[in-house]
Amino acid sequence: MLESSPLVRAMRGDRPPVTPVWFMRQAGRSLPEYNQARGNTTMLEACLTPELAAEITLQPVRRLGVDAAVFFSDIVVPLKLAGVGVEIAPGIGPVMDQPYRTPADIDHLCRAELTDDALTPITEAVRLTVNDLGATPLLGFAGAPFTLAAYLVEGKPSKDHLAARTLMHADPDSWRRLLNWAADIAARFLTAQVQAGASAVQLFDSWVGSLSLADYAAYVAPASTRALTAVAALGVPVVHFGTNTEHLLAAMRDVLTAAGVTSPIIGVDYRTPLDAAASIVPGVPLQGNIDPAMLAAGWPALSAHVRDVLTRGRQAPAHVANLGHGVPPSTDPDVLKRVVDLIHETPND
Amino acid sequence: MLESSPLVRAMRGDRPPVTPVWFMRQAGRSLPEYNQARGNTTMLEACLTPELAAEITLQPVRRLGVDAAVFFSDIVVPLKLAGVGVEIAPGIGPVMDQPYRTPADIDHLCRAELTDDALTPITEAVRLTVNDLGATPLLGFAGAPFTLAAYLVEGKPSKDHLAARTLMHADPDSWRRLLNWAADIAARFLTAQVQAGASAVQLFDSWVGSLSLADYAAYVAPASTRALTAVAALGVPVVHFGTNTEHLLAAMRDVLTAAGVTSPIIGVDYRTPLDAAASIVPGVPLQGNIDPAMLAAGWPALSAHVRDVLTRGRQAPAHVANLGHGVPPSTDPDVLKRVVDLIHETPND
Repeated sequence: MLESSPLVRAMRGDRPPVTPVWFMRQAGRSLPEYNQARGNTTMLEACLTPELAAEITLQPVRRLGVDAAVFFSDIVVPLKLAGVGVEIAPGIGPVMDQPYRTPADIDHLCRAELTDDALTPITEAVRLTVNDLGATPLLGFAGAPFTLAAYLVEGKPSKDHLAARTLMHADPDSWRRLLNWAADIAARFLTAQVQAGASAVQLFDSWVGSLSLADYAAYVAPASTRALTAVAALGVPVVHFGTNTEHLLAAMRDVLTAAGVTSPIIGVDYRTPLDAAASIVPGVPLQGNIDPAMLAAGWPALSAHVRDVLTRGRQAPAHVANLGHGVPPSTDPDVLKRVVDLIHETPND
Repeated sequence: MLESSPLVRAMRGDRPPVTPVWFMRQAGRSLPEYNQARGNTTMLEACLTPELAAEITLQPVRRLGVDAAVFFSDIVVPLKLAGVGVEIAPGIGPVMDQPYRTPADIDHLCRAELTDDALTPITEAVRLTVNDLGATPLLGFAGAPFTLAAYLVEGKPSKDHLAARTLMHADPDSWRRLLNWAADIAARFLTAQVQAGASAVQLFDSWVGSLSLADYAAYVAPASTRALTAVAALGVPVVHFGTNTEHLLAAMRDVLTAAGVTSPIIGVDYRTPLDAAASIVPGVPLQGNIDPAMLAAGWPALSAHVRDVLTRGRQAPAHVANLGHGVPPSTDPDVLKRVVDLIHETPND
């Protein structure tokens, strides 16, 4: 049933009659029912309360008619479940109890394990969600090793990830230990979601665009490959996505290939037109890449842009429509619904 | 005298015996004498006190032996001098008295003029600086129209410049009016610095990498061209720089060409190796692009990286060594000095 869903068909390289669409951050602050459901719970409490996480995951499917649910969670949730001191500060983002930069701090961190027991709130939430979703597939996700390490080394969100990028050159051994640990955490988080019922997964390397290709290849790609090798055996499609990654798209595709992922998909940031991306990673299904800034630009500009994205997406073997980055919190849900309808009304041939 | 300086020679496409080097943000928080000179003055007060701005501009030349001074100022200074309500909040950056997004607010803003009288603190500071610099050239600078508009529309620093990028599509007329106004402000600021003695200028389009090439070409390039057309007539070399701009380098070169700049230089972010940049914009002198993250990575890694940058820089007709972004505040000045010495000791052939 789920294998024949438009999402999974497109992710496996097919062109279903309707272009499937979902939105990064579709479950969250742009929906009034989300704010109501959250009430006074913190972000991490909400992620770790199975009934609530399931409800929030289902909300955009009900309201928007998207072709996939994306599991409501956060890339730092597996760190929290492994015992790392992390909170999500409203208006700021993930804040660690300390930056992890010294060999001793990294050694200590890497002794933390993500156990099956600790993952129970996740697997339970996924099961509840999948039960209610019926024919709509659930997409699981995790943060990629570099993006997790960037938060751990910086201790908080950062613009240019200077401390993380320094560490990889200043102490490559500690860096590799940290990235391998983060890779194993990401792999366990993804595996738990798939085993509980997710039909596909996305590995977010949100901040990897701050790296040169040479640094990516030497200091990051091996750990991303390690994370995805564990997931490849599960057979589900895997999307790999980052922002500012035009110069890294081919290397990210190589990570999927090296990991043995049978149905790789490259997620494309709004900056790179899909036809250009299709030339960079030929033969790979693409996901993306409506510019989130267009969501508030009025329907004439937005609808023309969506049609342009769909047209360019035809240069790829298959296309999963999405934004080129997450839904901005201020987005009008009615506009998202209208975008979904436009995509579904546009013939996919 | 200044035309034969290594900086101006390289900027004009020549290869002087020594590769000239300066650092973006070399005048500022990384130097103890800067913090001492600033005392309790605010950033904008310091920029608008000629003796202090001149002293801060000279400090890195004395300490580091760089081949250029870069005028100590801020890209929002000309906005302030035109009467726009802006402050630089410590730890945050430029904060406007309001966001400028509606047609009425933009109309009102665009009535503000940057007069010669208002520019007196700038021209006086430049004259004082040039008097003391002797054979070392002074580089003036301004923020490019998009980067100025990004601050004005957002009202504060922003990660993805969503409101600015929405406005260009939602209300292209207001956007063009805003960008043309910002272009004229930037042009007047640059012109004042050159007329007071700056030997070259840099137009910083720091945040332009958040745009796709199509948006850049349609909504930004004409205004950048307008700003530089006014400057081209002065005959000084012009560097154009932004971060995350690999996909825009050729279009930024086209702006310099369209403006009639006789000695154009492209500044390259640390992500794009200089030999790759030289292929994208052949025949143009390049500036950059030591990774600021390497400054704290230890001398073996840093010196190997600097040598690699110099080697790759030989693929361009001429090379002005610099960082690929600004000096991080935590940088050890002794490391900067060692980098300058290494660059000066490396034959430029």
